[in-house]
Amino acid sequence: MNSLYWIELFGVAVFAIAGTLEASRKRFDLFGVLVLAFVTALGGGTLRDLLLNVSPLAWIADLTLAYTALIAATLAFILVKFVAIPFKALLYADAIGLAAFTVSGTQASFDLGLPGLVVVMMGMASGIAGGIFRDLLANEVPLIFRRDVYATAALIGSLVSYLLFLFGVAEFICVITGFAIIVAIRFAAIRWQLSLPRFLFTTSYRQPSDKENS
Amino acid sequence: MNSLYWIELFGVAVFAIAGTLEASRKRFDLFGVLVLAFVTALGGGTLRDLLLNVSPLAWIADLTLAYTALIAATLAFILVKFVAIPFKALLYADAIGLAAFTVSGTQASFDLGLPGLVVVMMGMASGIAGGIFRDLLANEVPLIFRRDVYATAALIGSLVSYLLFLFGVAEFICVITGFAIIVAIRFAAIRWQLSLPRFLFTTSYRQPSDKENS
Amino acid sequence: MNSLYWIELFGVAVFAIAGTLEASRKRFDLFGVLVLAFVTALGGGTLRDLLLNVSPLAWIADLTLAYTALIAATLAFILVKFVAIPFKALLYADAIGLAAFTVSGTQASFDLGLPGLVVVMMGMASGIAGGIFRDLLANEVPLIFRRDVYATAALIGSLVSYLLFLFGVAEFICVITGFAIIVAIRFAAIRWQLSLPRFLFTTSYRQPSDKENS
Repeated sequence: MNSLYWIELFGVAVFAIAGTLEASRKRFDLFGVLVLAFVTALGGGTLRDLLLNVSPLAWIADLTLAYTALIAATLAFILVKFVAIPFKALLYADAIGLAAFTVSGTQASFDLGLPGLVVVMMGMASGIAGGIFRDLLANEVPLIFRRDVYATAALIGSLVSYLLFLFGVAEFICVITGFAIIVAIRFAAIRWQLSLPRFLFTTSYRQPSDKENS
Repeated sequence: MNSLYWIELFGVAVFAIAGTLEASRKRFDLFGVLVLAFVTALGGGTLRDLLLNVSPLAWIADLTLAYTALIAATLAFILVKFVAIPFKALLYADAIGLAAFTVSGTQASFDLGLPGLVVVMMGMASGIAGGIFRDLLANEVPLIFRRDVYATAALIGSLVSYLLFLFGVAEFICVITGFAIIVAIRFAAIRWQLSLPRFLFTTSYRQPSDKENS
Repeated sequence: MNSLYWIELFGVAVFAIAGTLEASRKRFDLFGVLVLAFVTALGGGTLRDLLLNVSPLAWIADLTLAYTALIAATLAFILVKFVAIPFKALLYADAIGLAAFTVSGTQASFDLGLPGLVVVMMGMASGIAGGIFRDLLANEVPLIFRRDVYATAALIGSLVSYLLFLFGVAEFICVITGFAIIVAIRFAAIRWQLSLPRFLFTTSYRQPSDKENS
């Protein structure tokens, strides 16, 4: 449980920064930034706790999480005012947060003795939710739905760490391995604009008479 | 409870297909498709379970629901790659899922002995939520808010099945009747572009000096 | 607890009206209006009850809340058909609902003996959630993220009423004071187009080579 706590704290800090970066691009004021940072940083864990019926929520039970989000967001806010932060910084920060929350969600579900499919789905949900909330509120198409190997990274990372947990591998190794896999896949996708092979894409056939409204 | 289970399973499959169809139009990759299909298929039931404090969630307690969503989405994904699927297919699939989840949500709430207004509202919420989540994530205006007799269908179906439950009619009849009503209303609306009478619409008076920003 | 109940009821009515006004601008039909009004009016309290693990939800336990939303929305719907309602009416209605739900969420969390940071965050969340749900579903950028002293008002009102609760001030005074502060700040911001000082804004440096897609 020790590494679970620290990876979650790390994910909260990084996602708070990601939320601040996204809010900065939208020119929010300080308190709008803090709201978006909180939702991004605490949203995934909150969703996981709600679905798994864990009460009280992690950030209600332990104030460190909320204060971490607050401090990380404030520091990032100040930094952004003085340093030019490229858009890719948001993508890399999001990738790190995605990795942290995916493996912490996977471990939390595994510790509850849930079936494998649920563990992997809950891990993915914990990882992707914060970014989805952030993008929805900022009126952006969620990153997960762009052509960039996002859900795939979360899936593979969650699956691998789940299997490692299942085989009794030391907790620290499971967490670090899953985290590293997701970060590696996402960083490569961002760096080299990767996407899945063509046959794994859908194609959309639209008849000329299709009307968008019912 | 037997028909409740089967109608829910049916709704999960159909909404997974609807989610896949919508993801296909947005050209998601396979895993983005699966994520959108899962959210659409399991979102309404999850929201209902959360609001009614049912724990564990239906799809955590019974893996059949998640596997159904997975298989239905994958099959639909493969189908879409070979066959041209018109936009209306999505509307019809959504209508069937709406009907299935509305009646299952109505029955689940009724079985808990809740007041009539809550039963009908919870039934409607269960039915419309999956589609709303799907449309929000896909960056579409939710179907329920277009001029096409959507909420009305869910309301009438929920209300009628609730009244049938109340009068002690056999469970199977209540479920099938409510389901058929919603499907009939939505199919008619899609087929003949129906909408409510003019007096049931709002009109928006905008003064020339209205500015969209505060 | 008496003033908590009445301020919540008042907030439900006002937010139902705000939801109806927003739906009117989008030309929803009557039932689409009712759905949006319900989500706006009951969304904040529902989110608060979910996060605080309060079961059953306030509007399931007490039908008055749902009926209040229903009646307020229907009356507003009828009014809108006959009277030109300017956009600013929506902003003022939203401000009153924001104030009501922020202080009721703050009090509800305080009564549970939660830490100060959680009480203030939960108060803010209860206040801003209804408007965010309304704007998301209506496909608008949430009001909280426009440059207009929105989150700030909720924060100050929640913080002040929390401190008054902490110092043992009579409950009625705490509630009215917090409510008045939020209403005053938001009304001033709407009336005089106020925004925070420039240094509390973020600026966004975009390098020319920034591409929006990863």
